[in-house]
Amino acid sequence: MLQNHVIVLQSGYAHEDANDPNAMRANCSCTLIRCRDSSNIIVDTMTAWDGEHLKTLLAGQGLQPDDIDVVVCTHGHSDHIGCNYLFQQARLHIVGSTASKHDLYTEYTGALDTHGEVLLEKTPGHTLSCASVIVHNSQFDGSTVGICGDLFERFEDIDDAQIWKAAGSEDEKQQAEQRYRIAQLCQYIVPGHGNIFQLNDEMRKKLKNI
Amino acid sequence: MLQNHVIVLQSGYAHEDANDPNAMRANCSCTLIRCRDSSNIIVDTMTAWDGEHLKTLLAGQGLQPDDIDVVVCTHGHSDHIGCNYLFQQARLHIVGSTASKHDLYTEYTGALDTHGEVLLEKTPGHTLSCASVIVHNSQFDGSTVGICGDLFERFEDIDDAQIWKAAGSEDEKQQAEQRYRIAQLCQYIVPGHGNIFQLNDEMRKKLKNI
Repeated sequence: MLQNHVIVLQSGYAHEDANDPNAMRANCSCTLIRCRDSSNIIVDTMTAWDGEHLKTLLAGQGLQPDDIDVVVCTHGHSDHIGCNYLFQQARLHIVGSTASKHDLYTEYTGALDTHGEVLLEKTPGHTLSCASVIVHNSQFDGSTVGICGDLFERFEDIDDAQIWKAAGSEDEKQQAEQRYRIAQLCQYIVPGHGNIFQLNDEMRKKLKNI
Repeated sequence: MLQNHVIVLQSGYAHEDANDPNAMRANCSCTLIRCRDSSNIIVDTMTAWDGEHLKTLLAGQGLQPDDIDVVVCTHGHSDHIGCNYLFQQARLHIVGSTASKHDLYTEYTGALDTHGEVLLEKTPGHTLSCASVIVHNSQFDGSTVGICGDLFERFEDIDDAQIWKAAGSEDEKQQAEQRYRIAQLCQYIVPGHGNIFQLNDEMRKKLKNI
C-alpha cells in the first residue's frame, strides 16, 4: 500500500432512548487503520457486549483480533474500551495518552507507525485525558484524517455546539480550542458518535468563532 | 449472610519499572463484594491481560464470571477496566457514575444492593468522573469500607500527599476534599494501588489539614 487506509468499521451513534427520556442509546465509532507499514491499529472498541460483532467486522477486512498491533481508546468511557480484552496480542493498548502492555505503563504521544504518518495527539476537553489519532497520507487522495472520539460528537455539532456540550465536556474551553486546531490539520473527521465527514473552510470558520 | 463481605481479590501496586525510569509497573486493587442480598459486585477489573488470573481468583471464592451482577470501575484507566468483557451477564457495568448494559446508558449513583447498604458515590479528583463504592454493615464488625480506586493510592499517601498527587490528579483540591469526606465516613479503605487499611482519628486529622 502506498497510503494509510482508514476504515470505519462501525459509525457511532447517540440518541435518547425511545422508552426512557433519562437514558441514552449510544455506541462509539470503531475505526481500523491499515497502515502502509503493514501494521493494524484499532481506535475505540465499542461496548463489552460487542465482541462477536467486532470479530465479524474485522473478518470482513480479512483480519482476526490477533492481527491488531495497537489498540487506541480515545478516552476511558465504557463504550470506547469494551472489547480491549480481545486484543491481548497487541503490542500496546493506549487509553488517552497512557500506553500499557500487561502491567507496564508509560505516557505516549507521537508516531504509531514506522513512517511517522499516524500520530497520537492529546485533545483534551470531553475528558481531560482525551486523545485523537491523526492519519496523514490517507487513501482519501493523501489527505489527513482525524479519528477524534468525542472531541466531535457528530457532523451536526459544528453548527450546533450544544450537541457536543450536552454530550458531556469536562472542559468546554479546551474542547473548543482542540476542535479548531484539529479542523485546521485535517480534511476528514471520524467523530465519536456519527459518520465520517469532510471539513471545508466555512466549517473551520464556525469552529474558530465558538 | 448477615453482613456484606468485602474480599480484596488482589491488592494493587504501582512502582517504577526496574529497567525503565520512565515506565511504571502497575495494577489496580480488584475487590469482590458479596452482598447480603446474595448479589455479587466486582470493583475494578485489572488489565486486559488478567482474565485467566481473575477467573482463578473468582473460582477461589466459588464463583464464575457469570455470577457477577454488577461491575464497577472506579474510573476509566486501563488497569481498572481491562476485564469488563468477561462479565457480559452482569445487569450493569458502571464506569465512574455512568452505567450501561449493551448500548443503553444512564447516570447512576446510590444503592447497588437491595438493602441500601452498598452505595456508589462520586469522588472526583484523580479523574473528574471517579467514583467509589461505600459498603456499610461489612464483615469487619459491621463497619463501613470504602473501595476508592485511586482516590487513595496507598496507605502511605496519608503521610505523604506527594504520592497521590504524583500518581496523577485532575483536580487536587477536589481530591483532597473527597479523601477527607470518605475518611470520615469509613473505617477501612481499599486504595487503588495498595493493601486495605484501617483509618484512625490521627489519620483523619492529617487528611483534614491537606
